[in-house]
Amino acid sequence: MLKHPRIVVIGAGFGGLQAAQSLANSGADVLLIDRNNYHLFVPLLYQVATAQLAPDLVAYPIRTILRRATNLQFLQAEVQKIDFSEQIIKVGDAVVPYNFLVLATGSQTRYLGVPGAAEYAFSMRTLEEAVALRNHLFSCFEQASHEPDPVRRERLLTVAIVGGGATGVEMAGALIEMFRTLRKDYPTLDWQQVRLLLVQSGDRLLPDLPRQLGEYTCKRLRQLGVEVHLHQKVNRITPGTLHLSDGQAIATETIIWTAGLQASAPETSQDLARATKEKLFVRSTLQLLEHGNVYAIGDLACVEQKGEPLTGVAPEALQQGVAVARNIRRQLRGKAPKPFRYFNKGRLAIIGCFSGVGKIGGFAFAGFPAWLMWLAVHLVYLPGYRSRLMVLLSWLHTYLSGDRAVRLILSPRRTTVHNRQIHQTVKSLEVSP
Amino acid sequence: MLKHPRIVVIGAGFGGLQAAQSLANSGADVLLIDRNNYHLFVPLLYQVATAQLAPDLVAYPIRTILRRATNLQFLQAEVQKIDFSEQIIKVGDAVVPYNFLVLATGSQTRYLGVPGAAEYAFSMRTLEEAVALRNHLFSCFEQASHEPDPVRRERLLTVAIVGGGATGVEMAGALIEMFRTLRKDYPTLDWQQVRLLLVQSGDRLLPDLPRQLGEYTCKRLRQLGVEVHLHQKVNRITPGTLHLSDGQAIATETIIWTAGLQASAPETSQDLARATKEKLFVRSTLQLLEHGNVYAIGDLACVEQKGEPLTGVAPEALQQGVAVARNIRRQLRGKAPKPFRYFNKGRLAIIGCFSGVGKIGGFAFAGFPAWLMWLAVHLVYLPGYRSRLMVLLSWLHTYLSGDRAVRLILSPRRTTVHNRQIHQTVKSLEVSP
Repeated sequence: MLKHPRIVVIGAGFGGLQAAQSLANSGADVLLIDRNNYHLFVPLLYQVATAQLAPDLVAYPIRTILRRATNLQFLQAEVQKIDFSEQIIKVGDAVVPYNFLVLATGSQTRYLGVPGAAEYAFSMRTLEEAVALRNHLFSCFEQASHEPDPVRRERLLTVAIVGGGATGVEMAGALIEMFRTLRKDYPTLDWQQVRLLLVQSGDRLLPDLPRQLGEYTCKRLRQLGVEVHLHQKVNRITPGTLHLSDGQAIATETIIWTAGLQASAPETSQDLARATKEKLFVRSTLQLLEHGNVYAIGDLACVEQKGEPLTGVAPEALQQGVAVARNIRRQLRGKAPKPFRYFNKGRLAIIGCFSGVGKIGGFAFAGFPAWLMWLAVHLVYLPGYRSRLMVLLSWLHTYLSGDRAVRLILSPRRTTVHNRQIHQTVKSLEVSP
Repeated sequence: MLKHPRIVVIGAGFGGLQAAQSLANSGADVLLIDRNNYHLFVPLLYQVATAQLAPDLVAYPIRTILRRATNLQFLQAEVQKIDFSEQIIKVGDAVVPYNFLVLATGSQTRYLGVPGAAEYAFSMRTLEEAVALRNHLFSCFEQASHEPDPVRRERLLTVAIVGGGATGVEMAGALIEMFRTLRKDYPTLDWQQVRLLLVQSGDRLLPDLPRQLGEYTCKRLRQLGVEVHLHQKVNRITPGTLHLSDGQAIATETIIWTAGLQASAPETSQDLARATKEKLFVRSTLQLLEHGNVYAIGDLACVEQKGEPLTGVAPEALQQGVAVARNIRRQLRGKAPKPFRYFNKGRLAIIGCFSGVGKIGGFAFAGFPAWLMWLAVHLVYLPGYRSRLMVLLSWLHTYLSGDRAVRLILSPRRTTVHNRQIHQTVKSLEVSP
């Protein structure tokens, strides 16, 4: 065994952070690198975008999590390049040597080659993006509440979500909840004018779940007032307009892109075998095909179980993090790593407005129990007692008082769109109530 | 009485918001204008900057506050110009007419003509500035924890506060609290290297309070490890250096400017009589000298009581807001406005680390009771039950667990300073614990 071997973990998402934690007191020096100083609890990110939770409740400081184990260190930095032959990582002007490496850099938004999507649509993978989307939504309401031109007003009050997977669905449900609670704040707005569209290229929502749950979800969203468009792709996006494959042009200031993800990996000295969506192929032990001392997990890796690729949810990454730590410990003792076996505890998806869907084992269910279970499970998995309490209080506030707590428009600079559109605003103010 | 007279209030700080609320159901249409969609609870802003409270807990959505009264409306906009002869306000391309006007636009940072202060120092008047300062402080710790050069490291770990009034004092105390709680997170940092300076031009801290309280505060801060420099002015500020009047040059990446305020007023068609710090002279009724249907309150106005100008704290603005609303209601009924009389309930200032000072009537006191009272009073005045509960829980968390909750570095773009300084970082990591 090497004296003080060095293990480097790149990425402090679910997989990387779990791998680091599972390597506590392993006899090796572990360095966890992430571009942010916090771990982002992605499943609740959509609640930041829809003003239900404050940003700090879904972001947990990594240093606090790593506090207890003395062999775990953290470095906030962007990794430039990995050199597999020298076994070093380039970070800024510095180099970090490693004996073992865990790549857990996750995924990024994939725009599927749609022109204008990257420029004009909102994605929601990072905390900054979720906050920016929230600010934008409230700016639209503010402007619309004083906008006399009905065409411009409709554009401000129309929101289109592209992608009918779990993220698109939960955004749609949460936006309906948000619109309902905001009626009291915007008495001059005609809420009949608000449109929410969900555009899905496939033939059903939630394609990772059984068909009947997807159909239930579609029915429920339509009940709530969402215009669900199936079998629809996006041709292109221009400023203020979403162009669908059937020729429709939807006028909207807010297009939320949840339709695609691809792996994000740092630059490497040698090419690695890649699957679809830029994911890295790995052995059943989660080691890279090419290098036995490098592992890849989470959204970055193409991990198959029973011949099928995993869907990319947090429990998979968490279990892989534990497995990788176990395998590296084995290698440190001179033993061979073991294959990873995913234990599927079930799958839940939240719709909103007290509805959700789920599948545990062979049992599929929907409605209020699934909604409650989704919230409970995520509350339990949230790091930190303080965050858990604050999140629970925020939810109680939302669902008992029917109110939305976090309605700030907080932006480093004034948005120029906003300034341009205050032109005839006061005409609406001259009508006495 | 005019049929549906229009009252416009510019500024939703303590004074303006209170004036609007006190004009509920007054028979007039009231329009409250502010550049933000939230009311900022400024006394707790320093706790956002020192990672004790999340930003949304000190910012309350104006629309929610104005919900109940049907004659109160809100417009989020920047006022360009006020035309007193036409009695209109220019907002973007639109014009808002008024019969009565309340100017409550508050104050802005005043740099006292010190070269470099506006460019290189951090002010803390807005939520964006407080969040930016918080992000900057944590970036400095992150960089310092991997910085091998002791000179650069000391610059990153030195914080200088300019201004020994209540804001400078509370920042100093809160930063000491913050440093203490962060030791567990940064095991590689030598906390002996951290320096906190408080620079005051006068001969004592808290010049608005009795001398013995200022001396107590100075003694307490020095006990806590703050280097208090009295009789010191700032000559100039260059990147990374604070140049004092006695010739000292303090190397620091963080200079917090709390040394001066001046009134911020929108452009007006006619010049108005101004006192020091750009404040507007007002009659005892709070009406402008020049226009009987225009009032000025809060930090914008130079209001004197018993021959002395008011100090500029929230209770003054709140009482002026109530008084202005009462006076406008009198004018609507054809009666003359009454003079404003400020009822001084006392003054409290928080130091931190369980210490504070206060003066109620002729009775001055200091220590733990003053600290507790400051927190309790501000908790009671915070708008909204949810915020009050969350703030109380945040404080309990901080003081019972000895921890800091909100440690995010959340920035829309990577700071270039940060990237430049990761150069020899890993040398420190090669020393095994």
